[in-house]
Amino acid sequence: MKHLLSTQDLSLDEAILVLDTAAQMAATQSREIKKLPTLRGRTVVNLFFEDSTRTRISFETAAKRLSADVINFSAKGSSVSKGESLKDTALTLHAMGADAVVVRHWASGAPHQLAHSGWLGSGDSPVAVLNAGDGTHQHPTQALLDAFTIRRHLVGRAGGATGDGVGRDLKGLRVAIVGDVLHSRVARSNVQLLRTLGADVTLVAPPTLLPVGVETWPCATSYDLDETLAHWAPDAVMMLRVQRERMSGGAGAFFPSPLEYSRRYGLDHRRLAMLPGHTVVMHPGPMNRGLEISAEAADSTRSVIVEQVANGVAVRMAALYLLLAGGSPAEGSAI
Amino acid sequence: MKHLLSTQDLSLDEAILVLDTAAQMAATQSREIKKLPTLRGRTVVNLFFEDSTRTRISFETAAKRLSADVINFSAKGSSVSKGESLKDTALTLHAMGADAVVVRHWASGAPHQLAHSGWLGSGDSPVAVLNAGDGTHQHPTQALLDAFTIRRHLVGRAGGATGDGVGRDLKGLRVAIVGDVLHSRVARSNVQLLRTLGADVTLVAPPTLLPVGVETWPCATSYDLDETLAHWAPDAVMMLRVQRERMSGGAGAFFPSPLEYSRRYGLDHRRLAMLPGHTVVMHPGPMNRGLEISAEAADSTRSVIVEQVANGVAVRMAALYLLLAGGSPAEGSAI
Amino acid sequence: MKHLLSTQDLSLDEAILVLDTAAQMAATQSREIKKLPTLRGRTVVNLFFEDSTRTRISFETAAKRLSADVINFSAKGSSVSKGESLKDTALTLHAMGADAVVVRHWASGAPHQLAHSGWLGSGDSPVAVLNAGDGTHQHPTQALLDAFTIRRHLVGRAGGATGDGVGRDLKGLRVAIVGDVLHSRVARSNVQLLRTLGADVTLVAPPTLLPVGVETWPCATSYDLDETLAHWAPDAVMMLRVQRERMSGGAGAFFPSPLEYSRRYGLDHRRLAMLPGHTVVMHPGPMNRGLEISAEAADSTRSVIVEQVANGVAVRMAALYLLLAGGSPAEGSAI
Repeated sequence: MKHLLSTQDLSLDEAILVLDTAAQMAATQSREIKKLPTLRGRTVVNLFFEDSTRTRISFETAAKRLSADVINFSAKGSSVSKGESLKDTALTLHAMGADAVVVRHWASGAPHQLAHSGWLGSGDSPVAVLNAGDGTHQHPTQALLDAFTIRRHLVGRAGGATGDGVGRDLKGLRVAIVGDVLHSRVARSNVQLLRTLGADVTLVAPPTLLPVGVETWPCATSYDLDETLAHWAPDAVMMLRVQRERMSGGAGAFFPSPLEYSRRYGLDHRRLAMLPGHTVVMHPGPMNRGLEISAEAADSTRSVIVEQVANGVAVRMAALYLLLAGGSPAEGSAI
Repeated sequence: MKHLLSTQDLSLDEAILVLDTAAQMAATQSREIKKLPTLRGRTVVNLFFEDSTRTRISFETAAKRLSADVINFSAKGSSVSKGESLKDTALTLHAMGADAVVVRHWASGAPHQLAHSGWLGSGDSPVAVLNAGDGTHQHPTQALLDAFTIRRHLVGRAGGATGDGVGRDLKGLRVAIVGDVLHSRVARSNVQLLRTLGADVTLVAPPTLLPVGVETWPCATSYDLDETLAHWAPDAVMMLRVQRERMSGGAGAFFPSPLEYSRRYGLDHRRLAMLPGHTVVMHPGPMNRGLEISAEAADSTRSVIVEQVANGVAVRMAALYLLLAGGSPAEGSAI
Repeated sequence: MKHLLSTQDLSLDEAILVLDTAAQMAATQSREIKKLPTLRGRTVVNLFFEDSTRTRISFETAAKRLSADVINFSAKGSSVSKGESLKDTALTLHAMGADAVVVRHWASGAPHQLAHSGWLGSGDSPVAVLNAGDGTHQHPTQALLDAFTIRRHLVGRAGGATGDGVGRDLKGLRVAIVGDVLHSRVARSNVQLLRTLGADVTLVAPPTLLPVGVETWPCATSYDLDETLAHWAPDAVMMLRVQRERMSGGAGAFFPSPLEYSRRYGLDHRRLAMLPGHTVVMHPGPMNRGLEISAEAADSTRSVIVEQVANGVAVRMAALYLLLAGGSPAEGSAI
């Protein structure tokens, strides 16, 4: 594994390797001193073409916990906006000796282009590219932290549980992903990874917020949240963030009003009560409390939303470790 | 002491502990290598909802001098502006394993809410909250660095001087605080702390720039700077920063013109000459030279304004040390 | 050497010292772990009054590779914009214990003023000032990295080559600098340093883009790029960045259209073919591909543009090392 670009690229073994490594990283994060010397002297660049403070500080925290140096490069107001190409930015970062580039980009495919262009070096040791979200395409570390969170909570229910009390994969688990699937890289990344790990997925959304071609995705779809919650009995319910800016103006034509959206697709107390006792509630954050999720649901004992954030640091530490410190599937998961 | 939110919370013993610890920190800052290993592996987040470069870099410098990792989180352009609540921001920082959050907020009371909500953990080891200025309410590290500066300069004049040449408290010292008290968190924090330490305080301002209820504050008030300087003979004169933006528009109704302000409340050469020989001149910065203070006064030998900046780093190192490294009043002030 | 303000200040011995030290730094940058402990505990402040992401991250990378702590201080939105003077900013940074200030400023001469005002301390150990570009005046580290790059590539052709395979100076080499010389601090810095090192320089530009008084510069000038390339046979061709914003509006009066500029002063395939086989192509970045340089020229095997970026880190490490770690010409170049 030289880059982390898409959950589609991850084999089952690779996904399990990242999750197992993340479990080891998570164990170190409950100590008083959370820092490891693993990546001392390495340089991680956060190359952000869009603002995303949460994702940036999660990666920055992960890199610093591994003792790497972090350079924050916000492409707003930089030479990029003065006409420099992605190519020249990449050549610059490579020349400066970056070991990894964490890239967030508004254009789907930009991280893939960075990784496979040769601009960041080639052969055995290119600069590692970690996709921190590209357009409506992928957000692989989000999917990995979601899978990690599910694995932690639903061990024993999954078909692939191992003997030592840790679920190996998610075989047979049922996950509902609810909301604006059309614009969501989180949904896309999650469907792929959850399938690789053996879970069954149902997307729940109004027809106008499902992407063209969704019938070829390896999952079911539904327009009816109540029906899905009541009769399918999911083990995990992932609420997607609504982009408020899509609710008005031109795009508003196919977007329900906030009130209507909330009534039909919001997770609230009533819907929470329909779920099996063990079902967990998830959200990638930042939440619109009162829109896609009620404050009551967000703060309920079923909610694992805060754990998702903590697990995000562990998963990103694992990804950086595996890409930079020479870990490979063949070597197993020793840190 | 688990948080540093307000000078009102500080007992005399706690205030003295911070000042004594700051003295030890200051001693390390005159060395060529100023860095200490004390907080290695700890994470300090600068959570700034308002720009304040000076305060941010002072805290960042203090944290790095103690070997902590620093994450800068400017809430402008972040998910906060996309509707995320302070609660969810706090839950996120806690989940990521922050050890301390330095918060600057436009809303009075936000740091208190952060600290006492439970969002940052509770029990024995919550994330420590350090108030870096909230609304017109408090700026406790500014008051502490001011007290530290006075103590250094006026030792021997204070009633509580100890035998080893370091003033213990500020008993009997006279401090004039001059200017826009109404909008100043610095004035409010200083009045409280200076009283705790035993100093006598007079606020000097036009009537329109004194807050309602000031008569309940533990200090005197005056509208006449010349009279206060000439007859009260203060040991320290603190000039407050004028917010130029308050001088025009609607607020201009009760705000004097710059020329008028400067004539009545500015510190200049003539007023400097009225003061006793030992009196020090202070300003929290950034200064409006020529408005509340003349260049001559700012650069005079009585001015300790630059030392205030240096002392700011020492005081913030002390606060971070005491909150994160387990220092407590009972243990005394050993670093 | 206490500051690095201008290439005009550098004696031949000093310039050679920086270049030799940079060569040693560059050697460390080909290792897997590129970090050195040299400046552990030191604080480097990046004080940027203009955005320049490339220059900022190059200095930040250089400082972190030497284990210094870095504080980024963007003067946009800071108290500077609230009326604080350069003087008070400098006094603040000095008081906070900065060891070096890397300053980028829109005003020519600001770094010189910082260094010689006494605001940053005086005597034996003032805060070191490194000019990262001031107005249209100087950009000395850019000139040093350019000289370093030429020295690496053209060893053996220069008169001053030493016995160990490294060129000592650039005696007798011919360097063409092409484009908007009028607004370029890079051109100005380079002409001075290249002359100090013994190279011959020709500036090539339209008459409206040459500065008044250019006839007193120690170099030749030409309006005809084809003629210079074909008949003067330069060993290195440096293309200057065109500031697109200067191409329209009022300044457009004396600025050619992009098409015209490109046709007369752009480096393309045809012009590349006029050059001697060993000639290198340079650009300080960020490039306007298709304007002052074609993609073909930028990516040709003659292009050393990416190496310039890598060398920038080495040269800035050398400058920080020499200014902060006590290196001086008398002590030679041992790291």
